[in-house]
Amino acid sequence: MKIVNHVIKLKTTATLDFIDITEKVQKKVKDAGIKNGVINIQSLHTTMAVIVNEAEPLLIADMQVLLEKLAPQTYEYMHDNFEIRTVNMCNGECANGHAHNKSIHLPTSTMLNVLKSKLQLGRWQRVFAVELDRSRPREIALQIIGE
Amino acid sequence: MKIVNHVIKLKTTATLDFIDITEKVQKKVKDAGIKNGVINIQSLHTTMAVIVNEAEPLLIADMQVLLEKLAPQTYEYMHDNFEIRTVNMCNGECANGHAHNKSIHLPTSTMLNVLKSKLQLGRWQRVFAVELDRSRPREIALQIIGE
Amino acid sequence: MKIVNHVIKLKTTATLDFIDITEKVQKKVKDAGIKNGVINIQSLHTTMAVIVNEAEPLLIADMQVLLEKLAPQTYEYMHDNFEIRTVNMCNGECANGHAHNKSIHLPTSTMLNVLKSKLQLGRWQRVFAVELDRSRPREIALQIIGE
Repeated sequence: MKIVNHVIKLKTTATLDFIDITEKVQKKVKDAGIKNGVINIQSLHTTMAVIVNEAEPLLIADMQVLLEKLAPQTYEYMHDNFEIRTVNMCNGECANGHAHNKSIHLPTSTMLNVLKSKLQLGRWQRVFAVELDRSRPREIALQIIGE
Repeated sequence: MKIVNHVIKLKTTATLDFIDITEKVQKKVKDAGIKNGVINIQSLHTTMAVIVNEAEPLLIADMQVLLEKLAPQTYEYMHDNFEIRTVNMCNGECANGHAHNKSIHLPTSTMLNVLKSKLQLGRWQRVFAVELDRSRPREIALQIIGE
Repeated sequence: MKIVNHVIKLKTTATLDFIDITEKVQKKVKDAGIKNGVINIQSLHTTMAVIVNEAEPLLIADMQVLLEKLAPQTYEYMHDNFEIRTVNMCNGECANGHAHNKSIHLPTSTMLNVLKSKLQLGRWQRVFAVELDRSRPREIALQIIGE
């Protein structure tokens, strides 16, 4: 058995940025020299998700509208009330309650099968890192396990 | 270590069809000859999800109502505007923006523990493939990994 | 390769209880003697989820509000209509349609990477078992697999 860990570094540009990481993940699977197994694609952030969907720009626009509707930036989250909040307060704390609440709808990690040294994906399936907060440096951790 | 891959083929009958695949998955776990490990149950489609819930028909009807409310078929998705869309257009392209947007709420794959050659499930837990689009042939890929 | 299974037993206190199980899971990873691999953290219940988010009390309050809004206790679920329901009826059956419908939005299991004998978590990431029903004894099954 072989286990390979790798961290993909990203720079997102704006809230609800959908970054297609399929090729980056695919390359790491190939480089790992693992033929059959599984890969866990895990966000290292509470306001970034990893999902699988179709890479069609209008569809991504639809999903952005839906996520914004589910947890709007305009709603007054208690997490953003810095007059009463005392826990996990940092210098320059930004209001990002909407981002955490969007994340309830999306997975932190996605597990995919590895078959013949490739991701076992259906025709339209692509892997996206989804920025739920604002433009930031981000990390996605891969764990590939197999033989 | 042993790794076994298998594809379950299904034919769904309508949108929001919940197909209980627990017995089919259970059988493959047994046939794989893997005592302890994990199984990744992965949809190979962007408009089919794999979830765990209770197999109670009225509950399934409730969840169908909820999913329809979250991303209604009546909403005008940009993904379905074939006058402006240019990406991933096929012959006989059908409007299925609602299906993709429902899929945001549901996982592409579900990982379950395998213990003593069986799925480690709680009393009411059953595995469902959920059709989010229309009646179609579908594939669920299993990767069982363990010893 | 090594595989270690363990069940964490919990007692929840109320609906939408968020129980931070990070330290308990971390300890089991350490005790398992597995350096690198993955861990599947799986609820054994259809009305309890396992998620990753930030342990900030006001944020948890926000997420409780959101989940209640998505599948309110006040809505009349068919699953709770005991005059027509015949399947999976137990003595003292309680109305918990809202809990199942909340669970649609949350994962049954969460897979995390294990690196250097620890969970590979980002700065703010904590693991929560989320009670969607009422106060009950609960079980979370861990499967740790690696070397």
